[in-house]
Amino acid sequence: MKQSAESRGDGPLAIFCAGGNLPFEVADAARRTGRQVFLYALRGFADATKVQDYPHQWGSLGQFGRFYRFARNRGCKDVVFIGTLTRPSFWRVWPDLKALRLLPRMLAAFRGGDNHLLSAIARMVEEHGFRMLGAHEIAPEILMQEGPIGRATACERDSVDIACGLALLRSIGAFDVGQAVVVADSRVLAVEAAEGTDRMLAHLTDLRRSGAVKWPTGTGVLVKAPKAGQDRRIDLPSIGPRTVEMAHMAGLAGVAVVARETVIAEPQAVAEIADRTNLFVIGVAAGEAG
Amino acid sequence: MKQSAESRGDGPLAIFCAGGNLPFEVADAARRTGRQVFLYALRGFADATKVQDYPHQWGSLGQFGRFYRFARNRGCKDVVFIGTLTRPSFWRVWPDLKALRLLPRMLAAFRGGDNHLLSAIARMVEEHGFRMLGAHEIAPEILMQEGPIGRATACERDSVDIACGLALLRSIGAFDVGQAVVVADSRVLAVEAAEGTDRMLAHLTDLRRSGAVKWPTGTGVLVKAPKAGQDRRIDLPSIGPRTVEMAHMAGLAGVAVVARETVIAEPQAVAEIADRTNLFVIGVAAGEAG
Repeated sequence: MKQSAESRGDGPLAIFCAGGNLPFEVADAARRTGRQVFLYALRGFADATKVQDYPHQWGSLGQFGRFYRFARNRGCKDVVFIGTLTRPSFWRVWPDLKALRLLPRMLAAFRGGDNHLLSAIARMVEEHGFRMLGAHEIAPEILMQEGPIGRATACERDSVDIACGLALLRSIGAFDVGQAVVVADSRVLAVEAAEGTDRMLAHLTDLRRSGAVKWPTGTGVLVKAPKAGQDRRIDLPSIGPRTVEMAHMAGLAGVAVVARETVIAEPQAVAEIADRTNLFVIGVAAGEAG
Repeated sequence: MKQSAESRGDGPLAIFCAGGNLPFEVADAARRTGRQVFLYALRGFADATKVQDYPHQWGSLGQFGRFYRFARNRGCKDVVFIGTLTRPSFWRVWPDLKALRLLPRMLAAFRGGDNHLLSAIARMVEEHGFRMLGAHEIAPEILMQEGPIGRATACERDSVDIACGLALLRSIGAFDVGQAVVVADSRVLAVEAAEGTDRMLAHLTDLRRSGAVKWPTGTGVLVKAPKAGQDRRIDLPSIGPRTVEMAHMAGLAGVAVVARETVIAEPQAVAEIADRTNLFVIGVAAGEAG
């Protein structure tokens, strides 16, 4: 909260608004501190119904020029990128690029992992005179705290799985690979790469249903942690109601994330689903076994 | 080849025969050196047609007692485990276990990754007075050599992807996770965990077709390497015609494996498919960039 004076300072806030509920939670948090918010709603991602409750303008992902004008015309110095976003194909972004002179940089940004892409975008935004803030600097309440949400807690075996998952994520963090793994009874069932957590869990559920990969129901933990070189202003790991629902469908015991470095969307709904499915959802200190 | 005197020595050889063509390649190699072979054909895995060309007996995975008697009655001191095998569910193995006193050990073996399971099996076999050999000690010709198979070769970008993949596999080797990753233009597209290489590639193909993960056709390398703590007598990484076919379907540029530490099934068929699909298939020295 020590950033509040600075980050919640005066001036309207431009929110580059992708999918899910988080952009609106951030917008509401900013409003509660007396800030005006303007949403740049990403076509194909932002929730069209919810967007209507805020001053907004629709635009597409590659239209940085349009976004800069939008923010500047409304007097926004601070910008936040928030919401779910699948990695766009280069060709989807390309036709919109502000100017052809951006092309070499975007080409370079598209080589390598997501860290690389997001950092390149952050640099571009800041070079245009904006200040890029992390959504959690605007709304610290969106961060997962230490301890469980809901009634269930991790057992001894789960704690070993959590420690194993965190250690594995640490060892691959340098490779700009995914932010999640599934470990069941000390066995690594899945490692997220480019597909994202939801698709990893859906695939694991398929593998289990087909009998290709087997483990007992109520065993195994989805573990998420930020990557080593990650720009935390843009890309903190996040969980929400759907994450818990999908972990339940995969037959897991629970979900563990790094406290204060993970965004939780709709915590109330997360707690309700966790209780209904008897899954634990827990925030652990970085480097701890839970 | 320095093991030939010892490993190819006299005495019949018991082959614990799982799926695919490799068990028969190993059997033929042993026969060429004048050794008798006996196949313990794993029900549900071994190729029923091919098995008929060899003295054999069918059995199931958990029937270690049956296997020991089979091997002992035929005067086999040396045993080889070879062929594809999906990790069995504990309940599939359980009803067959030689004696209930094996139960605690099997329970322990089933915790953790495949390395752990396979090492436990190897230890049990050796405690029963057998010598466990690696299939490549019997048939060094099944190992992939350095350099390309087929006409295509890796370009500069592919070599960077191969180096990245090998480094990533090294860093996760300690976690007894899968033996394969896919890297495209320095971006990690997939990391194999419990599902096996074929299913990882099939999933990646699905992700690509659905547009969830995008990369240009002819970019990306499937990289395979042995795990750090792996018992190489039982579980060397392997590729075969299907691997290349699936890498092609996923839109990749080629396949890279660690030379002399990877088994290649049906190299002639691999070369033909590689040429037809214009994929490279290359053996690289461990730790090299290709």
